[in-house]
Order: sequence, then structure tokens, then C-alpha cells
Amino acid sequence: MMANFMQLAFRLAKKADPFPNPRVGAVLVKDGEVIGTGYHKKAGEEHAEINAINDAKQKGKKVEGSTFYVTLEPCSHTNKRTPPCTGAIIANKIKKVVFAMKDPNPLVDGRKKLKEAGVIVVGPINEKKARTLNKKYLKNIARKTFVAIKMAMSADGKTATKTGDSKWITGENARKFVHKLRSEFDAVMVGAGTVKKDNPRLTARIKDGRNPYRIIIDSDLCILINSNVFGNGEKTIVITTEKASRKKRERMGKKAQIFVCGKKEVDLKKAILGLQAMGIRKILIEGGSELNAGALKAGIVDKLYLFIAPKIIGGRTAKGVVGGDGIKTMEKALKLKNRKTTIVGYDVLMEFDIERR
Amino acid sequence: MMANFMQLAFRLAKKADPFPNPRVGAVLVKDGEVIGTGYHKKAGEEHAEINAINDAKQKGKKVEGSTFYVTLEPCSHTNKRTPPCTGAIIANKIKKVVFAMKDPNPLVDGRKKLKEAGVIVVGPINEKKARTLNKKYLKNIARKTFVAIKMAMSADGKTATKTGDSKWITGENARKFVHKLRSEFDAVMVGAGTVKKDNPRLTARIKDGRNPYRIIIDSDLCILINSNVFGNGEKTIVITTEKASRKKRERMGKKAQIFVCGKKEVDLKKAILGLQAMGIRKILIEGGSELNAGALKAGIVDKLYLFIAPKIIGGRTAKGVVGGDGIKTMEKALKLKNRKTTIVGYDVLMEFDIERR
Repeated sequence: MMANFMQLAFRLAKKADPFPNPRVGAVLVKDGEVIGTGYHKKAGEEHAEINAINDAKQKGKKVEGSTFYVTLEPCSHTNKRTPPCTGAIIANKIKKVVFAMKDPNPLVDGRKKLKEAGVIVVGPINEKKARTLNKKYLKNIARKTFVAIKMAMSADGKTATKTGDSKWITGENARKFVHKLRSEFDAVMVGAGTVKKDNPRLTARIKDGRNPYRIIIDSDLCILINSNVFGNGEKTIVITTEKASRKKRERMGKKAQIFVCGKKEVDLKKAILGLQAMGIRKILIEGGSELNAGALKAGIVDKLYLFIAPKIIGGRTAKGVVGGDGIKTMEKALKLKNRKTTIVGYDVLMEFDIERR
Repeated sequence: MMANFMQLAFRLAKKADPFPNPRVGAVLVKDGEVIGTGYHKKAGEEHAEINAINDAKQKGKKVEGSTFYVTLEPCSHTNKRTPPCTGAIIANKIKKVVFAMKDPNPLVDGRKKLKEAGVIVVGPINEKKARTLNKKYLKNIARKTFVAIKMAMSADGKTATKTGDSKWITGENARKFVHKLRSEFDAVMVGAGTVKKDNPRLTARIKDGRNPYRIIIDSDLCILINSNVFGNGEKTIVITTEKASRKKRERMGKKAQIFVCGKKEVDLKKAILGLQAMGIRKILIEGGSELNAGALKAGIVDKLYLFIAPKIIGGRTAKGVVGGDGIKTMEKALKLKNRKTTIVGYDVLMEFDIERR
């Protein structure tokens, strides 16, 4: 019987191709009887699970205590466009979820969320067939993300004075260049420190410029809920860790998409894979020095845009452009390749390629 | 009488022109009688005072208790070529020294040394006439010194890893370039930290290359007496402060010229004027980060040679290329002018002009 219900879910999934989203079918079963069915029709519209629940309700069926058969692990992340399916499953007191394949996005862990809420979870039970169903989707999300890092420093490698004053390191032309650069990326990523210190909007302030996603790496959700990065909530993503309390996550979840990725420190490699699965393919990291160090150490960076301003800041305690714990021996230094040097106003822009590890 | 003896000293001084050294005449008087005379004949030969003492001795006169009339304050610094005149005056128990003008070199303080030894010192008593006598010399030593600073850093502004490993930041071509650069300068200046850490020879290791003076800024004479910089003693100068004990000064004085310049920290502005008076006109500062910061802050630097290596070192605690206390606001940042960028092997060399303050 279980196999039959899953086969039905697969047939439903095939009814549409909501690319770049995955094809998903869902069947709701109670006492051996199908009480509702659904599938994901189009990106931006309801997920299969929600459609199945609504279908059952419209038919006057009682959803409580039923079992779900879905071709893909239910999603768990808060998203402004569609509510998370795990939330609906829990709210509707569905007893059991059987799924064919795990979500390929490592940022999504619906299983865990369901189990925590007491739902019986079975799966993956038909990974191979489900992968074939979503070949195009999986191939697309496996496409390598291009990650660049932009740094701006004084000629002596500082990003601020000892008191933290950093306005401005580079000149107007360089800052304009960065706004243009942002519009060419799917997302701009910054650390929590930068949000707290500079409260940036991280928009591409150029005419007809496309605004990128804003991604904030914030291991304990310490940024303020009224920060400027939340100005356009739909496109703001906060990546945090298990350290951040559920209360904080839920609170900030009203303003942005929240992903938990890592125990104490954000696992940047996994985060990039997750963003990749979400279709975010070009990411521009814009500091601060700790995120710069973390990203370079994680080996996720393909390119460096380094602006060098014709000034000396100095100071033993003034922040350098790359922080982190640092290496011990010179041979461990990260090698930069294929330098390209251009003059941008008063400043020099050096572009380098970096080999991913 | 006093005026007459000084007039005689002036007449003696005029007998020679030991340019680039000053013209100096000296008359030794005892009981109203001239017992010895001398003048400085040629750079590299005995000073006037030594010649006068020797003259008196050859005539069988007892020098002890006599009075010296000299057209210039007696020199006090240890110099491999000629012993300091103050030392000879004290050793010969001369009672009193009358001098026409102060030494224009701020690093030379013969008055103080003599007074400390109980010699009665009178002067300057005829500054104007003595300045006219040495017009050419004074004009020459007032010629501005050209001070450049060479820095080598990773693309993120570091000069070493957090453990202090710094071999090598730049590639072979850049290091060769620096050896050639050194040979174009009269002197290379480094901080005590660099001597202790790297124990450099600071020579221009190129064929037919002229070796520059080695100047070490060491406020408490903490460098080792067997450091490589002392390999060629005649051309090594250590500039220290009153903090350094006399014993240390005397001990290191056997290896190099020692100058006291400043109470607790070396007064770099004064030091440059002193080196200028010694005919050292092109000085290349080669770090470390504290000396770099001090020199830039003192406003003595005319040019920056900045090597940028295509690598990232990172590390919160790894040394940046410019240390010091640092500035508070961005507007206080030191502006660099007239950038010139060249590729030197794997590295980039940026040259900048700096306005002296």
C-alpha cells in the first residue's frame, strides 16, 4: 500500500514542471484512504503538501492523524513567498510523513523539524526514482556557485582606524563601481559585525540596477531586527547556527529567511551549497575582516576584488582587511593568481583569481 | 685676552678647507700663554683640538689645567675615523673650553659631555663670525635629506604570519630590486625589532654595489653586540635615547657610532637633521612596522616604495606593515600622492610621494 501511495505521489509530481523549483507530489492518506492530493505547479505558488492539505479540507476530510506521502522531504525554512510545509504539517497534526528523497539543499532539514514536533518520519524510501524525476532541477542546483570577495583597504591594509572609523576608505568612483558590481551578483553576503557597525542597506544604488539578495552570516543572531538590511525582507537571508535560540530565530524569521547551518560557527561551505540549491549562483562577499578570513579559509572563494586606497591609516590595533586566527608559516599563505590591475578614480583595483579548495 | 685667543683660533681655522667638514681652529692657553695650536686640515684627519694638544705636547708643555679656545663646539660622538675631541679634552684634564659656535649637528652635544666631566664650558661667544667662516659647510649640511620608506606586504597588508614568519613576503625579483635600491642610498635605517628578529646584514648584495650606512633606531640599546649589522662597523650608526645606560652606550660604541637623540623615544626629526649634518643625504627606511609608523608620524618621509605580494596571510594578530598608536578619524589618514605602479616579478611595486610635515 505504502508503495502505491508513493507511486501516486510520483504521478502527481510529473503533472507540472515548476523549474527552477523541484517537481513534488503529495498524497494524504487516512485509514487506508486517499483524502487529499497535490503537486507543486509553479515556482512562487503553493507547495505540493499545502495543496494536498487544502484539497482534503475542501473535500470535508479531517486531516488530523493522517499520513503524508511526498516525493521530496518537506521544506522547513521560512520563506516570504510560501510558508514552510513542515509548519503546516505540524499545525494540522499530521501523524506521519513518508518521503522519497532528502532535500538536496543542505540548509533545509525538514526531517529534524518534524521529528522534534513528534511527527513519525520515514524516508528516504525511493531516492533513485525521485532523483530521476528531478534530473533537470538537480543538475541546475549542482551548478557551481561563483563566489567573489570584495575588500577595500588603505595602502597599509587597514579597513578602519583604531576607533573603527571607516568612512571612507576608497573614493567615490570605487564606491560607485561596487554598487555596479553588486547589481551583477545574485547576492551580497556580509558578517553580523558589518551590519552592526555600518548598518548598510547593501543595495545596488544604480539606475535600473537589480538588487541582490542580502545574506547575513550571524552565528548567534545578534543583529538588530530593525537593521537596514531588512528593508526589503523577501530578499534577505540570515544564516545562523544552533547557538541562536529558537525564539530569536522565530522573531527574525518574520523579517527574513533564517537558515541554521553549523553548530557554533556558520559552516560556510555548506551554506554556499544551500544557497546554490536555492538558485543563488553569484555571491559577492563584502566583509568584514572575520567573514573575509572565514570564507578564504573555507576555500569557497573564486575571485578577489581588492581596492587599495592611496592613504596610510596605521595603528597596531586598527583592523586589517583579513582577520581570523591566521596561519603559522608563510608557505601556508593563500596564493592569488592572474592579477589584473586597474585604476578606479583615486584608487587601484586589483583583481585576482583564487583556486577553490 | 680671551677675544685675542679666539681671533687666533679663527685665523688658524682659515688655513684649510676640509670640506665637507667644517673649518675649525683651536688654541690651547695656560697662564696667559699660548702653549699649542691646531686646525682641521682635511676630512678624515685629526680634528683641530687633537692637533693643538699634540702640538703642545711636542713642545714639552703640560696641557693639564689649560684653557681651550675653539671656533666650534668640540665633537662628542664616537667615530671610527677620529676619536671624539671631548674625550681627549677630558683625558688631558683641560680645565676650561671656550667655543665660538655650537655644533649645528643636533646629534652632537659636546658641551654636555664636557660639563658632566667637570670642565668649565663657555660659549657660544662668536656665533656670527663662526657661521660666516663655515658658510659653505653650513649651507651643505642644511641641504634637505631625501628619506624613502620601503615596505613589503601581502595583499592584505601583513608583513609576517601571527608567529612572526616573514620569509619571504615578496619574490626574488623584488628582493633583488631592494638590494639595488639600497646601493642608491647613503644609508639604510631599521628599527631594533627588525635587527633582533631578522638579524639582517643590510648590505647591497649586488656586484659593484656601494654599501650604505646602516642606521639602527634602538631607544634602549637592546640589540645584540654580535648582530650582523655590526659586520662593517665603520658604517654602522645606532641612534638611542637617554634611557640607554652609559655602560651600554660605551660597550656598543666600540662597534658603531652611537648617538643619543631623545629622552625615551628617538626623536626621528632631530635624528634626520643630525644625519644630514653628517652628510647622509639619502636614507631608506626599511621597517619594521613601529619604525614605519614613527617615521610617517614624524613627517620625515618623502617617498614610499610599497611592494604588494600576491598572497593573503590574514590573522587578527599578525603584524601589519604600519604599526604605531594609529589615528582616530579617517580624515587624519596620511595621503599618498603621484602613484606609479610597476610589476616586479610576481609582485607589484607602488611608488608614492609623501608631503613632509
